[in-house]
Amino acid sequence: MATQTAQFAPPGNWQELCDPIQPFLDEVSGCLQEEVRSFDPQIANFIQYALGSQGKQLRPALVALGARATGGLNPKHVHAAVIIEMVHLATLVHDDVVDGAEVRRSRPTLAAHWGNKVSVLAGDCLFAEALKLAAKLPSNEVCRLVSQSAKVVCTGEIRQTLHRGNFELSRTEYLELVQMKTAELFALACELGARFAVPENPEIHQALRDYGLKLGTAYQIYDDCLDVFGEENHAGKSLGTDLITGKATLPVIIALERADEIERKAWLAMLKDGEAQAGTIRERLLGQHIPASCCEVVEDYIQQANACVVELPAVESLRGLSDCLLRQLGALTD
Amino acid sequence: MATQTAQFAPPGNWQELCDPIQPFLDEVSGCLQEEVRSFDPQIANFIQYALGSQGKQLRPALVALGARATGGLNPKHVHAAVIIEMVHLATLVHDDVVDGAEVRRSRPTLAAHWGNKVSVLAGDCLFAEALKLAAKLPSNEVCRLVSQSAKVVCTGEIRQTLHRGNFELSRTEYLELVQMKTAELFALACELGARFAVPENPEIHQALRDYGLKLGTAYQIYDDCLDVFGEENHAGKSLGTDLITGKATLPVIIALERADEIERKAWLAMLKDGEAQAGTIRERLLGQHIPASCCEVVEDYIQQANACVVELPAVESLRGLSDCLLRQLGALTD
Repeated sequence: MATQTAQFAPPGNWQELCDPIQPFLDEVSGCLQEEVRSFDPQIANFIQYALGSQGKQLRPALVALGARATGGLNPKHVHAAVIIEMVHLATLVHDDVVDGAEVRRSRPTLAAHWGNKVSVLAGDCLFAEALKLAAKLPSNEVCRLVSQSAKVVCTGEIRQTLHRGNFELSRTEYLELVQMKTAELFALACELGARFAVPENPEIHQALRDYGLKLGTAYQIYDDCLDVFGEENHAGKSLGTDLITGKATLPVIIALERADEIERKAWLAMLKDGEAQAGTIRERLLGQHIPASCCEVVEDYIQQANACVVELPAVESLRGLSDCLLRQLGALTD
Repeated sequence: MATQTAQFAPPGNWQELCDPIQPFLDEVSGCLQEEVRSFDPQIANFIQYALGSQGKQLRPALVALGARATGGLNPKHVHAAVIIEMVHLATLVHDDVVDGAEVRRSRPTLAAHWGNKVSVLAGDCLFAEALKLAAKLPSNEVCRLVSQSAKVVCTGEIRQTLHRGNFELSRTEYLELVQMKTAELFALACELGARFAVPENPEIHQALRDYGLKLGTAYQIYDDCLDVFGEENHAGKSLGTDLITGKATLPVIIALERADEIERKAWLAMLKDGEAQAGTIRERLLGQHIPASCCEVVEDYIQQANACVVELPAVESLRGLSDCLLRQLGALTD
């Protein structure tokens, strides 16, 4: 069983992959820090705190790698990455309110620190500022794409909230939620990477968008598995929360798919009592080799992602990212 | 004392003022209803409910009156009004979460009906959709102005939240909060009315913006006074909530300004126990003729508003609005 768990926390080469784009990521970080000064001094500490929860800068990295795979980086990519990361951080602030989460990236959430009221409004401010930055670009394109993606992400979050406690969620509905709430911003990041690199090539924009959707789906499924099977001290956040808060994710969905009627009833009874039964549920999932089945699904999405960009001339950076995520996702609890 | 209270619920001629722009307001309402269909079917009922809480359509009316005062209505004004009303409704949804409000416009708030989680995310979806609509316009102008205003509004709301329980709030700080959280969207509505009517005349855009800021400040001060002095059955929402939730507004600020050191301590002791003392506080404020003093402040802002547009050729509609608000604000619990 230890071996199965280990599949979800392998060593990786994320840093190696980021080395060539590190100056870009540093510039994005610097711009986000600069952004704090654009807010009212009375609220700057909340914004600073929220912007300080950047993790591995996965979405900015996707902008950069998408750009390198298509036509090369230029200053517009920094602008796009700052916007997407700010939207992402805004959604995290609201997610933590909605989920009642107390820890993210090994420190108290904004909501745990300053309460839900400030967090709801600070998230709004971040989102408004992201759109304000988007409106500084000469065309309406980024405003349109960012607001569309934000709508999809939040819609996915509402649908997930409505399914809280529904462990009979179908795999199809689960995958749709994953695509909306996580993969959509991955797709946006990859697409903007391409749009600003090769503005006149809509096929490549679409290919990068599709790549991001598949990769983001793989990533979120993996993250969900980590919540069930991972080790808390590696994750930098509370684990097991999905079982406790009644969120059905792939491990449970697969177990229920395989169960006969009697087993199904037993599973549902256990899952209804997720808080008390989390340990037992985890053991049973491990005993049924569910982690391996989940990994197959993740790998399949990564292969689909790679297939989207196979015809691009400079595809190595994206392949490197896919492969890295495949080995590394356990460390990316973004 | 009854006479003083009556100052805050006079009969008015809002409907008369709206008659010439009623087709415009109906079109805006129709577009907002149509907008429901642009959302995911699983969340449409929340959006429908939130969009159904349009009150007197004050902000759309400001767009129309601003347009008529400057160069006349055109289809872009409907688009602008829908965007602003949607941003406004999004902020109401989040305000009700932040304030724990249970009733708005004589019906349960979205938060009271479906909980804070759905409300936070539904507000986000509305805001994202508003920006998406803004991005459909040919230039970036509306995206830029709307996101800037949204940032100001939410910043004002955070600052107000931080001052919860602080009854020693200065009049200057109070007026700044009022301007940020309410007058900003009034200013935006008036400004977009002018921008789409006379695109090439920045002086007029600025004059209309200034008019909206002053009028919006008057309106919010009046609404705050209504919360203290109004009659619940006319207001369509819970009253006295500011005293109960520790929000210092003009009546209390004036009372404290006038108090000597001993009276001040007595006031602060009463205000700290706002929930139990609300009735007594109200009686004392009435006894000190505070409503009349508040009305003077409101009237002064309305005069300042009128002064901003005095040189416009077709200023009657705006003057009508100012005068109407002056007589009518009690009925406008928007």
